[in-house]
Amino acid sequence: MTKAEAGKVYLVGAGPGDPELLTVRAVRLLETADVVFHDDLVPDEVLALAHKHALVTSVGKRCGRPRITQQGIHSLMIEAARAGQSVVRLKSGDPLVFGRAGEEIAALRAAAVDFEVVPGVTAAFAAGASLALPLTDRKSASKLILCTGHHATGKDPAPVWSGPLPEDATLVIYMPGRDTARLARELAEAGVAADVPCAAVSQAATPRQTHAACRLEKFAELECGPAPLLVLVGRAMEPLVMGQQDEAGLPIAEAAQLLDRVLRLSSR
Amino acid sequence: MTKAEAGKVYLVGAGPGDPELLTVRAVRLLETADVVFHDDLVPDEVLALAHKHALVTSVGKRCGRPRITQQGIHSLMIEAARAGQSVVRLKSGDPLVFGRAGEEIAALRAAAVDFEVVPGVTAAFAAGASLALPLTDRKSASKLILCTGHHATGKDPAPVWSGPLPEDATLVIYMPGRDTARLARELAEAGVAADVPCAAVSQAATPRQTHAACRLEKFAELECGPAPLLVLVGRAMEPLVMGQQDEAGLPIAEAAQLLDRVLRLSSR
Repeated sequence: MTKAEAGKVYLVGAGPGDPELLTVRAVRLLETADVVFHDDLVPDEVLALAHKHALVTSVGKRCGRPRITQQGIHSLMIEAARAGQSVVRLKSGDPLVFGRAGEEIAALRAAAVDFEVVPGVTAAFAAGASLALPLTDRKSASKLILCTGHHATGKDPAPVWSGPLPEDATLVIYMPGRDTARLARELAEAGVAADVPCAAVSQAATPRQTHAACRLEKFAELECGPAPLLVLVGRAMEPLVMGQQDEAGLPIAEAAQLLDRVLRLSSR
Repeated sequence: MTKAEAGKVYLVGAGPGDPELLTVRAVRLLETADVVFHDDLVPDEVLALAHKHALVTSVGKRCGRPRITQQGIHSLMIEAARAGQSVVRLKSGDPLVFGRAGEEIAALRAAAVDFEVVPGVTAAFAAGASLALPLTDRKSASKLILCTGHHATGKDPAPVWSGPLPEDATLVIYMPGRDTARLARELAEAGVAADVPCAAVSQAATPRQTHAACRLEKFAELECGPAPLLVLVGRAMEPLVMGQQDEAGLPIAEAAQLLDRVLRLSSR
Protein backbone atom coordinates (compact mmCIF):
# COMPACT_ATOMS: atom_id res chain seq x y z
CA MET A 1 0.00 0.00 0.00
CA THR A 2 1.39 3.37 -1.03
CA LYS A 3 2.29 5.66 1.85
CA ALA A 4 3.90 9.11 1.76
CA GLU A 5 7.59 8.73 2.71
CA ALA A 6 9.44 10.93 5.18
CA GLY A 7 11.70 13.57 3.66
CA LYS A 8 10.07 13.35 0.25
CA VAL A 9 7.94 15.80 -1.75
CA TYR A 10 5.04 14.57 -3.91
CA LEU A 11 3.80 16.90 -6.63
CA VAL A 12 0.28 15.53 -6.88
CA GLY A 13 -2.54 16.23 -9.31
CA ALA A 14 -5.75 16.89 -7.40
CA GLY A 15 -7.86 16.37 -10.50
CA PRO A 16 -10.65 18.69 -11.62
CA GLY A 17 -12.48 19.04 -8.29
CA ASP A 18 -14.64 15.95 -7.69
CA PRO A 19 -12.88 13.87 -4.99
CA GLU A 20 -13.84 10.69 -6.90
CA LEU A 21 -11.72 11.92 -9.82
CA LEU A 22 -8.53 11.84 -7.77
CA THR A 23 -6.29 8.90 -8.61
CA VAL A 24 -5.97 6.10 -6.09
CA ARG A 25 -2.32 7.08 -5.60
CA ALA A 26 -3.23 10.71 -4.91
CA VAL A 27 -5.75 9.63 -2.25
CA ARG A 28 -3.23 7.34 -0.51
CA LEU A 29 -0.57 10.05 -0.46
CA LEU A 30 -3.02 12.66 0.80
CA GLU A 31 -4.19 10.31 3.55
CA THR A 32 -0.67 9.68 4.81
CA ALA A 33 1.29 12.93 4.27
CA ASP A 34 2.45 15.04 7.22
CA VAL A 35 2.11 18.29 5.30
CA VAL A 36 -0.16 19.34 2.42
CA PHE A 37 0.58 22.56 0.51
CA HIS A 38 -2.27 23.20 -1.90
CA ASP A 39 -3.43 25.65 -4.55
CA ASP A 40 -6.50 27.81 -3.96
CA LEU A 41 -8.52 25.93 -6.58
CA VAL A 42 -8.40 22.61 -4.69
CA PRO A 43 -11.85 22.21 -3.06
CA ASP A 44 -12.50 21.40 0.58
CA GLU A 45 -13.98 17.99 -0.33
CA VAL A 46 -10.53 16.96 -1.60
CA LEU A 47 -8.61 18.49 1.32
CA ALA A 48 -10.90 16.59 3.69
CA LEU A 49 -9.06 13.42 2.64
CA ALA A 50 -5.86 14.59 4.37
CA HIS A 51 -4.88 12.98 7.68
CA LYS A 52 -6.46 14.71 10.66
CA HIS A 53 -3.03 15.48 12.14
CA ALA A 54 -1.60 16.78 8.88
CA LEU A 55 -0.74 20.44 8.38
CA VAL A 56 -2.92 21.52 5.46
CA THR A 57 -2.13 24.99 4.08
CA SER A 58 -3.02 26.96 1.00
CA VAL A 59 -0.05 28.41 -0.84
CA GLY A 60 -2.25 29.77 -3.64
CA LYS A 61 -1.59 33.09 -5.25
CA ARG A 62 -5.10 34.45 -5.61
CA CYS A 63 -5.92 36.71 -8.49
CA GLY A 64 -4.78 40.22 -7.52
CA ARG A 65 -3.96 39.19 -3.96
CA PRO A 66 -0.37 37.92 -3.86
CA ARG A 67 0.29 36.07 -0.66
CA ILE A 68 3.35 33.93 -1.13
CA THR A 69 6.00 34.03 -3.81
CA GLN A 70 6.93 31.06 -5.96
CA GLN A 71 10.32 31.14 -4.18
CA GLY A 72 8.50 31.00 -0.88
CA ILE A 73 6.66 27.84 -1.95
CA HIS A 74 9.97 26.25 -2.94
CA SER A 75 11.48 27.08 0.47
CA LEU A 76 8.48 25.68 2.33
CA MET A 77 8.61 22.36 0.47
CA ILE A 78 12.36 22.01 0.78
CA GLU A 79 12.53 22.91 4.48
CA ALA A 80 9.62 20.60 5.36
CA ALA A 81 11.24 17.68 3.52
CA ARG A 82 14.63 18.40 5.13
CA ALA A 83 12.93 18.36 8.50
CA GLY A 84 11.84 14.80 7.74
CA GLN A 85 8.21 15.52 6.85
CA SER A 86 6.36 13.77 4.05
CA VAL A 87 5.07 16.58 1.84
CA VAL A 88 2.22 16.60 -0.66
CA ARG A 89 2.22 19.60 -3.01
CA LEU A 90 -1.33 19.46 -4.32
CA LYS A 91 -2.12 21.15 -7.62
CA SER A 92 -5.52 21.21 -9.30
CA GLY A 93 -5.82 19.07 -12.42
CA ASP A 94 -2.54 17.57 -13.60
CA PRO A 95 0.56 19.02 -11.93
CA LEU A 96 2.56 19.30 -15.18
CA VAL A 97 -0.05 21.25 -17.13
CA PHE A 98 -0.24 25.02 -16.48
CA GLY A 99 0.91 24.64 -12.88
CA ARG A 100 4.46 26.05 -12.79
CA ALA A 101 5.62 22.59 -11.78
CA GLY A 102 8.78 23.06 -13.86
CA GLU A 103 10.02 25.72 -11.48
CA GLU A 104 9.19 23.63 -8.41
CA ILE A 105 10.90 20.58 -9.88
CA ALA A 106 14.01 22.63 -10.68
CA ALA A 107 14.09 23.96 -7.12
CA LEU A 108 13.71 20.47 -5.60
CA ARG A 109 16.45 19.12 -7.88
CA ALA A 110 18.77 21.99 -6.99
CA ALA A 111 18.16 21.31 -3.29
CA ALA A 112 18.72 17.55 -3.81
CA VAL A 113 15.34 16.81 -2.21
CA ASP A 114 13.75 13.50 -3.21
CA PHE A 115 10.49 13.99 -5.10
CA GLU A 116 7.91 12.30 -7.28
CA VAL A 117 5.21 13.54 -9.66
CA VAL A 118 1.74 11.96 -9.57
CA PRO A 119 -0.36 12.79 -12.64
CA GLY A 120 -4.00 13.78 -12.49
CA VAL A 121 -7.14 14.28 -14.56
CA THR A 122 -7.07 17.71 -16.16
CA ALA A 123 -10.16 19.94 -16.23
CA ALA A 124 -10.56 19.65 -20.00
CA PHE A 125 -11.11 15.89 -19.73
CA ALA A 126 -13.60 16.31 -16.89
CA ALA A 127 -15.51 18.96 -18.83
CA GLY A 128 -15.62 16.69 -21.89
CA ALA A 129 -16.78 13.76 -19.78
CA SER A 130 -19.56 15.66 -18.03
CA LEU A 131 -20.87 16.94 -21.38
CA ALA A 132 -20.31 13.49 -22.98
CA LEU A 133 -18.40 15.14 -25.81
CA PRO A 134 -15.40 13.47 -27.42
CA LEU A 135 -12.37 15.80 -27.41
CA THR A 136 -10.99 14.06 -30.47
CA ASP A 137 -12.95 12.48 -33.28
CA ARG A 138 -11.79 10.39 -36.23
CA LYS A 139 -13.65 12.59 -38.66
CA SER A 140 -13.50 16.09 -37.25
CA ALA A 141 -10.81 16.43 -34.57
CA SER A 142 -7.54 14.54 -34.80
CA LYS A 143 -5.70 16.95 -32.48
CA LEU A 144 -6.32 18.27 -28.99
CA ILE A 145 -4.69 21.55 -28.02
CA LEU A 146 -4.57 22.83 -24.45
CA CYS A 147 -3.55 26.46 -24.00
CA THR A 148 -4.08 29.34 -21.58
CA GLY A 149 -5.80 32.67 -22.00
CA HIS A 150 -3.91 35.79 -21.03
CA HIS A 151 -6.95 37.88 -20.23
CA ALA A 152 -6.88 37.11 -16.52
CA THR A 153 -3.68 39.05 -16.00
CA GLY A 154 -3.61 41.30 -19.05
CA LYS A 155 0.18 41.27 -18.92
CA ASP A 156 0.76 39.12 -21.98
CA PRO A 157 -0.33 40.75 -25.23
CA ALA A 158 -0.04 37.51 -27.26
CA PRO A 159 -3.30 36.02 -28.55
CA VAL A 160 -4.29 32.54 -27.35
CA TRP A 161 -3.22 31.18 -30.72
CA SER A 162 -1.14 32.90 -33.39
CA GLY A 163 -1.07 31.66 -36.96
CA PRO A 164 -3.75 29.43 -38.45
CA LEU A 165 -5.39 26.95 -36.08
CA PRO A 166 -5.71 23.50 -37.70
CA GLU A 167 -9.30 22.86 -38.78
CA ASP A 168 -9.22 19.35 -37.32
CA ALA A 169 -8.33 20.44 -33.79
CA THR A 170 -10.22 20.80 -30.53
CA LEU A 171 -8.83 23.82 -28.69
CA VAL A 172 -9.29 24.07 -24.93
CA ILE A 173 -8.48 27.40 -23.31
CA TYR A 174 -7.73 27.36 -19.59
CA MET A 175 -8.20 30.63 -17.69
CA PRO A 176 -9.77 32.35 -20.69
CA GLY A 177 -10.76 35.46 -18.74
CA ARG A 178 -14.11 37.12 -19.30
CA ASP A 179 -13.44 39.16 -22.44
CA THR A 180 -15.32 36.88 -24.84
CA ALA A 181 -15.36 39.58 -27.54
CA ARG A 182 -11.57 39.71 -27.58
CA LEU A 183 -11.31 35.92 -27.53
CA ALA A 184 -13.81 35.64 -30.39
CA ARG A 185 -11.74 38.14 -32.41
CA GLU A 186 -8.52 36.21 -31.75
CA LEU A 187 -10.10 32.92 -32.77
CA ALA A 188 -11.49 34.46 -35.97
CA GLU A 189 -8.02 35.86 -36.72
CA ALA A 190 -6.59 32.34 -36.25
CA GLY A 191 -8.91 31.25 -39.05
CA VAL A 192 -11.64 29.62 -36.95
CA ALA A 193 -14.81 29.70 -39.06
CA ALA A 194 -17.87 31.63 -37.87
CA ASP A 195 -19.93 28.45 -37.54
CA VAL A 196 -17.44 26.52 -35.38
CA PRO A 197 -19.02 25.59 -32.02
CA CYS A 198 -17.61 27.11 -28.82
CA ALA A 199 -18.51 26.10 -25.28
CA ALA A 200 -17.78 27.81 -21.97
CA VAL A 201 -17.76 25.43 -19.01
CA SER A 202 -17.90 26.95 -15.53
CA GLN A 203 -16.66 25.07 -12.45
CA ALA A 204 -16.13 21.77 -14.28
CA ALA A 205 -16.47 18.57 -12.23
CA THR A 206 -18.16 20.27 -9.29
CA PRO A 207 -21.84 20.13 -8.33
CA ARG A 208 -22.01 23.77 -9.49
CA GLN A 209 -20.90 23.06 -13.07
CA THR A 210 -22.79 24.94 -15.77
CA HIS A 211 -22.10 25.45 -19.45
CA ALA A 212 -23.16 27.64 -22.33
CA ALA A 213 -22.47 27.10 -26.01
CA CYS A 214 -22.91 28.81 -29.35
CA ARG A 215 -21.18 29.19 -32.70
CA LEU A 216 -18.13 31.48 -32.89
CA GLU A 217 -20.15 34.26 -34.59
CA LYS A 218 -22.20 34.67 -31.38
CA PHE A 219 -19.43 33.91 -28.88
CA ALA A 220 -18.75 37.58 -28.04
CA GLU A 221 -22.20 37.78 -26.42
CA LEU A 222 -22.11 34.40 -24.65
CA GLU A 223 -23.00 34.55 -20.95
CA CYS A 224 -20.35 32.49 -19.14
CA GLY A 225 -20.73 31.23 -15.58
CA PRO A 226 -18.32 32.03 -12.73
CA ALA A 227 -14.60 31.06 -12.73
CA PRO A 228 -12.86 28.68 -13.01
CA LEU A 229 -13.82 28.71 -16.67
CA LEU A 230 -12.77 26.58 -19.62
CA VAL A 231 -13.51 27.42 -23.24
CA LEU A 232 -13.69 24.55 -25.75
CA VAL A 233 -13.61 25.30 -29.47
CA GLY A 234 -14.01 22.90 -32.38
CA ARG A 235 -16.23 20.76 -34.58
CA ALA A 236 -16.29 18.03 -31.91
CA MET A 237 -18.51 20.40 -29.85
CA GLU A 238 -21.20 20.25 -32.55
CA PRO A 239 -23.75 18.28 -30.45
CA LEU A 240 -23.91 21.24 -28.03
CA VAL A 241 -25.11 23.70 -30.66
CA MET A 242 -26.96 21.44 -33.07
CA GLY A 243 -30.34 22.54 -31.64
CA GLN A 244 -29.32 26.17 -32.02
CA GLN A 245 -28.61 25.61 -35.68
CA ASP A 246 -32.13 24.24 -36.11
CA GLU A 247 -33.60 27.21 -34.26
CA ALA A 248 -31.72 29.58 -36.53
CA GLY A 249 -33.05 27.79 -39.61
CA LEU A 250 -36.30 28.35 -41.50
CA PRO A 251 -39.33 29.46 -39.49
CA ILE A 252 -41.77 26.56 -39.15
CA ALA A 253 -44.47 28.21 -41.33
CA GLU A 254 -42.00 28.74 -44.16
CA ALA A 255 -40.68 25.21 -43.79
CA ALA A 256 -44.23 23.87 -44.10
CA GLN A 257 -44.82 25.91 -47.24
CA LEU A 258 -41.56 24.64 -48.71
CA LEU A 259 -42.50 21.04 -47.94
CA ASP A 260 -45.87 21.64 -49.57
CA ARG A 261 -44.17 22.91 -52.74
CA VAL A 262 -41.77 19.98 -52.81
CA LEU A 263 -44.65 17.53 -52.49
CA ARG A 264 -46.55 19.21 -55.31
CA LEU A 265 -43.44 19.07 -57.51
CA SER A 266 -43.08 15.33 -56.99
CA SER A 267 -46.81 14.63 -57.58
CA ARG A 268 -46.82 16.28 -61.02
CA MET B 1 -20.47 5.00 -2.33
CA THR B 2 -20.50 4.85 -6.11
CA LYS B 3 -21.79 1.59 -7.57
CA ALA B 4 -22.36 0.64 -11.17
CA GLU B 5 -26.12 0.87 -11.90
CA ALA B 6 -28.16 -1.77 -13.71
CA GLY B 7 -28.97 -0.96 -17.34
CA LYS B 8 -26.33 1.73 -17.61
CA VAL B 9 -23.09 1.95 -19.61
CA TYR B 10 -20.01 3.65 -18.16
CA LEU B 11 -17.32 4.79 -20.59
CA VAL B 12 -14.40 4.71 -18.18
CA GLY B 13 -10.81 5.86 -18.53
CA ALA B 14 -8.45 3.12 -17.35
CA GLY B 15 -5.55 5.55 -17.08
CA PRO B 16 -2.08 4.89 -18.47
CA GLY B 17 -1.55 1.37 -17.06
CA ASP B 18 -0.59 1.61 -13.40
CA PRO B 19 -3.66 0.53 -11.35
CA GLU B 20 -2.88 3.28 -8.80
CA LEU B 21 -3.42 5.83 -11.56
CA LEU B 22 -7.06 4.86 -12.02
CA THR B 23 -9.49 7.36 -10.54
CA VAL B 24 -11.37 6.38 -7.40
CA ARG B 25 -14.59 6.43 -9.43
CA ALA B 26 -13.14 4.10 -12.07
CA VAL B 27 -12.12 1.59 -9.38
CA ARG B 28 -15.56 1.64 -7.74
CA LEU B 29 -17.33 1.12 -11.07
CA LEU B 30 -14.94 -1.67 -12.07
CA GLU B 31 -15.46 -3.40 -8.73
CA THR B 32 -19.24 -3.37 -9.07
CA ALA B 33 -20.01 -3.77 -12.80
CA ASP B 34 -21.60 -6.95 -14.16
CA VAL B 35 -19.81 -6.70 -17.49
CA VAL B 36 -16.46 -5.16 -18.47
CA PHE B 37 -15.64 -4.61 -22.16
CA HIS B 38 -12.04 -3.46 -22.43
CA ASP B 39 -9.44 -2.42 -24.99
CA ASP B 40 -6.37 -4.58 -25.57
CA LEU B 41 -4.06 -2.00 -24.00
CA VAL B 42 -5.66 -2.26 -20.55
CA PRO B 43 -3.26 -4.35 -18.44
CA ASP B 44 -4.19 -7.39 -16.34
CA GLU B 45 -3.37 -5.54 -13.10
CA VAL B 46 -6.24 -3.16 -13.86
CA LEU B 47 -8.66 -5.88 -14.99
CA ALA B 48 -7.94 -7.75 -11.75
CA LEU B 49 -9.99 -5.07 -9.97
CA ALA B 50 -13.20 -6.29 -11.62
CA HIS B 51 -15.68 -8.28 -9.54
CA LYS B 52 -14.93 -12.02 -9.55
CA HIS B 53 -18.37 -12.80 -11.01
CA ALA B 54 -18.13 -10.11 -13.71
CA LEU B 55 -17.84 -10.98 -17.37
CA VAL B 56 -14.55 -9.39 -18.44
CA THR B 57 -13.92 -9.43 -22.20
CA SER B 58 -11.51 -7.75 -24.56
CA VAL B 59 -13.16 -6.00 -27.49
CA GLY B 60 -9.84 -4.66 -28.74
CA LYS B 61 -9.05 -4.42 -32.41
CA ARG B 62 -5.44 -5.54 -32.46
CA CYS B 63 -3.11 -4.08 -35.04
CA GLY B 64 -3.64 -6.07 -38.24
CA ARG B 65 -5.92 -8.62 -36.54
CA PRO B 66 -9.49 -7.34 -36.70
CA ARG B 67 -11.70 -9.23 -34.29
CA ILE B 68 -14.79 -7.22 -33.65
CA THR B 69 -16.16 -4.25 -35.54
CA GLN B 70 -16.95 -0.91 -33.94
CA GLN B 71 -20.62 -1.67 -34.69
CA GLY B 72 -20.21 -4.96 -32.87
CA ILE B 73 -18.93 -3.16 -29.77
CA HIS B 74 -21.95 -0.84 -29.88
CA SER B 75 -24.34 -3.80 -30.09
CA LEU B 76 -22.65 -5.59 -27.19
CA MET B 77 -22.89 -2.55 -24.91
CA ILE B 78 -26.48 -1.77 -25.87
CA GLU B 79 -27.74 -5.35 -25.56
CA ALA B 80 -26.02 -5.87 -22.21
CA ALA B 81 -27.51 -2.67 -20.82
CA ARG B 82 -30.98 -3.54 -22.18
CA ALA B 83 -30.69 -6.92 -20.47
CA GLY B 84 -30.28 -5.01 -17.19
CA GLN B 85 -26.54 -5.44 -16.78
CA SER B 86 -24.28 -2.70 -15.45
CA VAL B 87 -21.64 -2.23 -18.12
CA VAL B 88 -18.15 -0.72 -17.89
CA ARG B 89 -16.56 0.11 -21.24
CA LEU B 90 -12.93 0.45 -20.23
CA LYS B 91 -10.60 2.45 -22.48
CA SER B 92 -6.93 3.06 -21.82
CA GLY B 93 -6.02 6.61 -20.80
CA ASP B 94 -8.92 9.06 -21.06
CA PRO B 95 -11.96 7.76 -22.94
CA LEU B 96 -12.50 10.98 -24.91
CA VAL B 97 -8.97 11.25 -26.28
CA PHE B 98 -8.12 9.08 -29.31
CA GLY B 99 -10.58 6.36 -28.28
CA ARG B 100 -13.47 6.56 -30.77
CA ALA B 101 -15.70 7.41 -27.84
CA GLY B 102 -17.67 9.79 -30.05
CA GLU B 103 -19.00 6.89 -32.09
CA GLU B 104 -19.88 4.86 -28.99
CA ILE B 105 -21.63 7.84 -27.40
CA ALA B 106 -23.63 8.44 -30.59
CA ALA B 107 -24.69 4.77 -30.67
CA LEU B 108 -25.74 4.80 -27.01
CA ARG B 109 -27.71 8.03 -27.52
CA ALA B 110 -29.42 6.61 -30.61
CA ALA B 111 -30.39 3.50 -28.63
CA ALA B 112 -31.61 5.62 -25.71
CA VAL B 113 -29.32 3.72 -23.32
CA ASP B 114 -28.35 5.59 -20.15
CA PHE B 115 -24.62 6.25 -20.00
CA GLU B 116 -21.90 8.24 -18.25
CA VAL B 117 -18.31 9.16 -19.10
CA VAL B 118 -15.60 8.90 -16.43
CA PRO B 119 -12.39 10.74 -17.34
CA GLY B 120 -8.93 9.29 -16.85
CA VAL B 121 -5.23 10.15 -16.79
CA THR B 122 -3.87 10.17 -20.32
CA ALA B 123 -0.53 8.54 -21.17
CA ALA B 124 1.14 11.88 -21.95
CA PHE B 125 0.62 13.06 -18.38
CA ALA B 126 1.93 9.79 -16.95
CA ALA B 127 5.00 9.94 -19.18
CA GLY B 128 5.66 13.53 -18.12
CA ALA B 129 5.22 12.60 -14.46
CA SER B 130 7.54 9.62 -14.57
CA LEU B 131 10.24 11.70 -16.25
CA ALA B 132 9.49 14.66 -13.92
CA LEU B 133 9.20 16.94 -16.94
CA PRO B 134 6.69 19.77 -17.09
CA LEU B 135 4.54 19.54 -20.22
CA THR B 136 3.97 23.27 -20.16
CA ASP B 137 6.37 25.91 -18.94
CA ARG B 138 5.87 29.64 -18.45
CA LYS B 139 8.97 30.44 -20.45
CA SER B 140 9.19 27.77 -23.14
CA ALA B 141 5.89 25.95 -23.59
CA SER B 142 2.58 27.72 -23.18
CA LYS B 143 0.66 25.14 -25.26
CA LEU B 144 0.27 21.37 -25.09
CA ILE B 145 -0.75 19.57 -28.27
CA LEU B 146 -1.85 15.93 -28.30
CA CYS B 147 -2.05 14.27 -31.72
CA THR B 148 -1.74 10.84 -33.29
CA GLY B 149 0.77 9.41 -35.71
CA HIS B 150 -0.55 7.73 -38.82
CA HIS B 151 2.41 5.44 -39.31
CA ALA B 152 0.85 2.51 -37.49
CA THR B 153 -1.74 1.99 -40.22
CA GLY B 154 -0.14 3.77 -43.17
CA LYS B 155 -3.60 4.56 -44.47
CA ASP B 156 -3.55 8.27 -43.75
CA PRO B 157 -1.01 10.22 -45.82
CA ALA B 158 -1.32 13.41 -43.72
CA PRO B 159 1.71 14.38 -41.63
CA VAL B 160 1.34 14.51 -37.83
CA TRP B 161 1.26 18.30 -38.08
CA SER B 162 0.78 20.43 -41.18
CA GLY B 163 1.71 24.09 -41.22
CA PRO B 164 4.11 25.69 -38.77
CA LEU B 165 4.14 24.23 -35.27
CA PRO B 166 4.16 27.00 -32.63
CA GLU B 167 7.62 27.35 -31.09
CA ASP B 168 6.18 27.54 -27.58
CA ALA B 169 4.36 24.20 -27.77
CA THR B 170 4.96 20.74 -26.37
CA LEU B 171 3.77 18.22 -28.96
CA VAL B 172 2.89 14.69 -27.82
CA ILE B 173 2.38 12.09 -30.53
CA TYR B 174 0.33 9.01 -29.61
CA MET B 175 0.87 5.88 -31.71
CA PRO B 176 3.78 7.44 -33.60
CA GLY B 177 4.72 4.19 -35.34
CA ARG B 178 8.35 3.20 -35.76
CA ASP B 179 9.40 5.27 -38.77
CA THR B 180 11.39 7.87 -36.84
CA ALA B 181 13.08 9.10 -40.04
CA ARG B 182 9.72 10.02 -41.55
CA LEU B 183 8.53 11.60 -38.31
CA ALA B 184 11.76 13.61 -38.05
CA ARG B 185 11.24 14.87 -41.60
CA GLU B 186 7.64 15.84 -40.89
CA LEU B 187 8.62 17.71 -37.74
CA ALA B 188 11.40 19.56 -39.58
CA GLU B 189 8.92 20.49 -42.31
CA ALA B 190 6.60 21.85 -39.61
CA GLY B 191 9.43 24.21 -38.67
CA VAL B 192 10.72 22.38 -35.59
CA ALA B 193 14.37 23.44 -35.15
CA ALA B 194 17.15 20.84 -35.36
CA ASP B 195 18.10 21.37 -31.71
CA VAL B 196 14.61 20.87 -30.26
CA PRO B 197 14.58 17.93 -27.82
CA CYS B 198 12.53 14.82 -28.67
CA ALA B 199 11.79 11.92 -26.34
CA ALA B 200 10.35 8.49 -27.09
CA VAL B 201 8.66 6.88 -24.07
CA SER B 202 7.90 3.17 -24.28
CA GLN B 203 5.20 1.53 -22.13
CA ALA B 204 4.58 4.63 -20.01
CA ALA B 205 3.36 4.08 -16.44
CA THR B 206 4.22 0.37 -16.39
CA PRO B 207 7.14 -1.30 -14.63
CA ARG B 208 8.62 -1.82 -18.11
CA GLN B 209 8.74 1.88 -19.01
CA THR B 210 11.89 3.03 -20.81
CA HIS B 211 12.72 6.21 -22.65
CA ALA B 212 15.27 7.57 -25.09
CA ALA B 213 15.86 11.19 -26.01
CA CYS B 214 17.88 13.31 -28.40
CA ARG B 215 17.63 16.51 -30.40
CA LEU B 216 15.55 16.48 -33.59
CA GLU B 217 18.64 16.34 -35.81
CA LYS B 218 19.42 12.86 -34.43
CA PHE B 219 15.84 11.64 -34.00
CA ALA B 220 15.82 9.55 -37.20
CA GLU B 221 18.38 7.21 -35.61
CA LEU B 222 16.83 7.07 -32.12
CA GLU B 223 16.32 3.55 -30.77
CA CYS B 224 12.77 3.46 -29.38
CA GLY B 225 11.51 0.75 -27.03
CA PRO B 226 8.49 -1.49 -27.70
CA ALA B 227 4.94 -0.19 -28.22
CA PRO B 228 2.87 1.45 -26.87
CA LEU B 229 5.07 4.43 -27.67
CA LEU B 230 4.70 8.15 -27.10
CA VAL B 231 6.89 10.80 -28.70
CA LEU B 232 7.25 14.14 -26.90
CA VAL B 233 8.71 17.12 -28.75
CA GLY B 234 9.56 20.57 -27.41
CA ARG B 235 11.83 22.86 -25.41
CA ALA B 236 10.23 21.62 -22.16
CA MET B 237 12.06 18.28 -22.79
CA GLU B 238 15.42 20.08 -22.50
CA PRO B 239 16.47 18.43 -19.19
CA LEU B 240 16.47 15.04 -20.97
CA VAL B 241 19.09 16.07 -23.52
CA MET B 242 21.08 18.67 -21.60
CA GLY B 243 23.91 16.22 -20.94
CA GLN B 244 23.98 15.26 -24.60
CA GLN B 245 24.46 18.88 -25.60
CA ASP B 246 27.46 19.09 -23.29
CA GLU B 247 28.92 15.90 -24.72
CA ALA B 248 28.53 17.24 -28.22
CA GLY B 249 30.25 20.49 -27.28
CA LEU B 250 33.94 21.37 -27.26
CA PRO B 251 36.38 18.63 -26.21
CA ILE B 252 37.72 19.42 -22.72
CA ALA B 253 41.26 20.07 -23.94
CA GLU B 254 40.06 22.61 -26.49
CA ALA B 255 37.75 24.21 -23.93
CA ALA B 256 40.73 24.64 -21.57
CA GLN B 257 42.78 26.25 -24.33
CA LEU B 258 39.91 28.59 -25.16
CA LEU B 259 39.55 29.58 -21.52
CA ASP B 260 43.28 30.23 -21.38
CA ARG B 261 43.03 32.54 -24.38
CA VAL B 262 40.07 34.39 -22.94
CA LEU B 263 41.92 34.93 -19.67
CA ARG B 264 44.97 36.25 -21.50
CA LEU B 265 42.77 38.63 -23.48
CA SER B 266 41.26 40.06 -20.31
CA SER B 267 44.63 40.44 -18.57
CA ARG B 268 46.08 42.61 -21.35
